[in-house]
Amino acid sequence: MLENINFYCIMPAKLIKIAIDAMGGDDAPDVPVNGIKVFLSTFPSENVIFKVYGDEQILRRKMLGIDRARYEIIHCENKIESDEKPSLAVRQSKGTSMRAAIEAVSSKECDASISGGNTGALMALSKIILKTAKDIDRPAICAMMPTKSGKCVLLDMGANIDVTAQNLLEFAFMGEAFAQVVLKKRKPTVGLLNIGSEEMKGHAYIHEAAEKIRASHLKDQFIGYIEPDKIYTGEVDVIVTDGFTGNIVIKSAEGLGKMIKILLKRAFSSSIFAVVGAILCGMSVKRTMKKMDPNNYNGGMFIGLNGVSIKSHGGADKYGFANAIMTAVSIVKEEMHRKIVEKINLS
Amino acid sequence: MLENINFYCIMPAKLIKIAIDAMGGDDAPDVPVNGIKVFLSTFPSENVIFKVYGDEQILRRKMLGIDRARYEIIHCENKIESDEKPSLAVRQSKGTSMRAAIEAVSSKECDASISGGNTGALMALSKIILKTAKDIDRPAICAMMPTKSGKCVLLDMGANIDVTAQNLLEFAFMGEAFAQVVLKKRKPTVGLLNIGSEEMKGHAYIHEAAEKIRASHLKDQFIGYIEPDKIYTGEVDVIVTDGFTGNIVIKSAEGLGKMIKILLKRAFSSSIFAVVGAILCGMSVKRTMKKMDPNNYNGGMFIGLNGVSIKSHGGADKYGFANAIMTAVSIVKEEMHRKIVEKINLS
Repeated sequence: MLENINFYCIMPAKLIKIAIDAMGGDDAPDVPVNGIKVFLSTFPSENVIFKVYGDEQILRRKMLGIDRARYEIIHCENKIESDEKPSLAVRQSKGTSMRAAIEAVSSKECDASISGGNTGALMALSKIILKTAKDIDRPAICAMMPTKSGKCVLLDMGANIDVTAQNLLEFAFMGEAFAQVVLKKRKPTVGLLNIGSEEMKGHAYIHEAAEKIRASHLKDQFIGYIEPDKIYTGEVDVIVTDGFTGNIVIKSAEGLGKMIKILLKRAFSSSIFAVVGAILCGMSVKRTMKKMDPNNYNGGMFIGLNGVSIKSHGGADKYGFANAIMTAVSIVKEEMHRKIVEKINLS
Repeated sequence: MLENINFYCIMPAKLIKIAIDAMGGDDAPDVPVNGIKVFLSTFPSENVIFKVYGDEQILRRKMLGIDRARYEIIHCENKIESDEKPSLAVRQSKGTSMRAAIEAVSSKECDASISGGNTGALMALSKIILKTAKDIDRPAICAMMPTKSGKCVLLDMGANIDVTAQNLLEFAFMGEAFAQVVLKKRKPTVGLLNIGSEEMKGHAYIHEAAEKIRASHLKDQFIGYIEPDKIYTGEVDVIVTDGFTGNIVIKSAEGLGKMIKILLKRAFSSSIFAVVGAILCGMSVKRTMKKMDPNNYNGGMFIGLNGVSIKSHGGADKYGFANAIMTAVSIVKEEMHRKIVEKINLS
């Protein structure tokens, strides 16, 4: 079920500790707990252990069957609800599983934290607790999108609603570093999302950002404006945009993907021929649907902070959560944070 | 091939004259000419005739086989290239097929014009020649999107990159009128596109627009913010957004749809079982793919002008162009312009 994920095991096996907010997400704590199970059964030899934050009594029961050497439960009295207003959630965050998981990263007890809970609260708490990395003005959320030929990196996914040209330039640097780690490309290509490839289209700050990128170390990797229909062609490795637009792209893709899945299911059961046909081409179509499943692209990262905080999609299933764990492990192994700060200093 | 289109023939058969820019679009003049042929063969009894603007010599040859009573060719020396800068294209628009087609609407020779050419130039020329309708500040581009259960209306699709709350309110009125005509709903529901359903999310002008809509005649039809993954669920009839975001939504959907089509084709030919299966469920899957084909949703309208100017997608095929013709005919029959101005005056 995790076939589409590139997982890199090329670094020496240092022990990696992941903090899990077990109470965040639509089906918590089942999804985080089962995500850990999927991860451990898929990569039993990975040198990873978990600190699991949440209701001890519930978790002790749910975690039965997992090797006790691979996890520790840390009891938390409270949790942040997914529909809570972020500013209020932050003020009332003491003793919550989300806050405790992020604090474990800031105190260096853990190398990364993962939560499927309230995005706004997670972003605010991650910023408050981990602080923005040196020379970075605004952190961003980075995620992977499927393409015809593989994957690309899209940022910002929703951390910054209003941006400046300088923010977009920094996102380009962060996206480059993220793509170097997750796509394994030494010199990933970078494009600015815009509604036309012509110079005069779109917002003024996009035009300014293009000039800034052309004047940076990215000049040879920059392919200019990329139109939204090109996101999925695989023509570019890193797509840079503001958080409002990035969020629109990923959420509308999710909605369209779901609609197509429903319509295809209906088509496959519309006649006896279609039913037999569907059985015959079942596996290959299933693989294709899987490739488009948002669970395979789970694990948006808050990039640009002094520590790794991963947002798992609130509606992700156990495989999606396991993918978020893998993203966290890859990022820690490859020391992406150090690389990003280096890039920014290069510019 | 036009099965998914609702075409309304309930009004008395007044003669409708459509101006066609035969030189605009990727495969002009073949697509416009063949679009006319498809339209006439699908609806032979519709009381519609065409004024076709472009190179007379070429068009005379291409139009062979179409009933001479149904069209007239008007020779134009020039055409606007699709990659021309709109401001320059407007300055050099004299004698072009695009300008002549719009002028035919302004002079009342025709009831509507259709062009698949340069969107920016078409928008600028439509505004300059047709002028904005009474009490409307900014025209918008309106289009239809597929949903799980039918269709919805999305605007603005790209006419207004930066908007105010007042603009969004006017778009809501225009969208309502458009939905009344094309979706045949007396009281269509209206939603504001935003990245969260919570009150504090997204740009400030979106929050202001929500207040304005709640204070207008739309208050009972307004369902608040709609997240992008809900575009395709059919939960709302009219989705209001700025032109930058609307363009991102439609173009990224186009890109994702194309990718899924390619991946499914690959899946269907990946093994002998899949090939046989694909043959068995061929028709029903084909119908589903057709439902998602952008050609079925072709014909974005510049709404809020003193006259009907329709933008056909530059990459549309003959069926797509025929759909744009049908949109134009429906809009003219139902006097949508008058209805929109009435709505604005109601508020």
